[in-house]
Amino acid sequence: MQYSLDINIQLKGGMLDPEAAAIKQSLERIGFKTRELKLAKKIQVTIDAETEKDAENTAKQMCERLLANPVIHDYTIAVTVVNQ
Amino acid sequence: MQYSLDINIQLKGGMLDPEAAAIKQSLERIGFKTRELKLAKKIQVTIDAETEKDAENTAKQMCERLLANPVIHDYTIAVTVVNQ
Repeated sequence: MQYSLDINIQLKGGMLDPEAAAIKQSLERIGFKTRELKLAKKIQVTIDAETEKDAENTAKQMCERLLANPVIHDYTIAVTVVNQ
Repeated sequence: MQYSLDINIQLKGGMLDPEAAAIKQSLERIGFKTRELKLAKKIQVTIDAETEKDAENTAKQMCERLLANPVIHDYTIAVTVVNQ
């Protein structure tokens, strides 16, 4: 079966995020007051798997082996069946 | 009132995404077969606004003036009240 994996990768809380700080500053320079700004990378992957559990395990392994750096990143995974 | 804006920015369909292609290739090189892989940037901004409608308009303006390039990007906005 086909599954869609929504993987969200974000810097751990408290980590300095220069890109977010730069965007926040640019927004304020053109007049947008913001309290807080955080960035996340969303990776949407479509894979074949036997079960939803298999798909979720595959996503976890993808994160641990390539997509996320466990020292600085937190990640969340959402799995949905793809209707053909 | 405080509102949390979840802004999702993605390349328009059909656009070539070299970063996504590189990630897909790296995943396959370490043994993960994928059908499709798409990337999106998620920006979470906390702002003050009078109403939810005002917050949404502010988010739209942020996208149109800075965060998204209307020629190559699609964006979605989700607004939620921040409970203090």
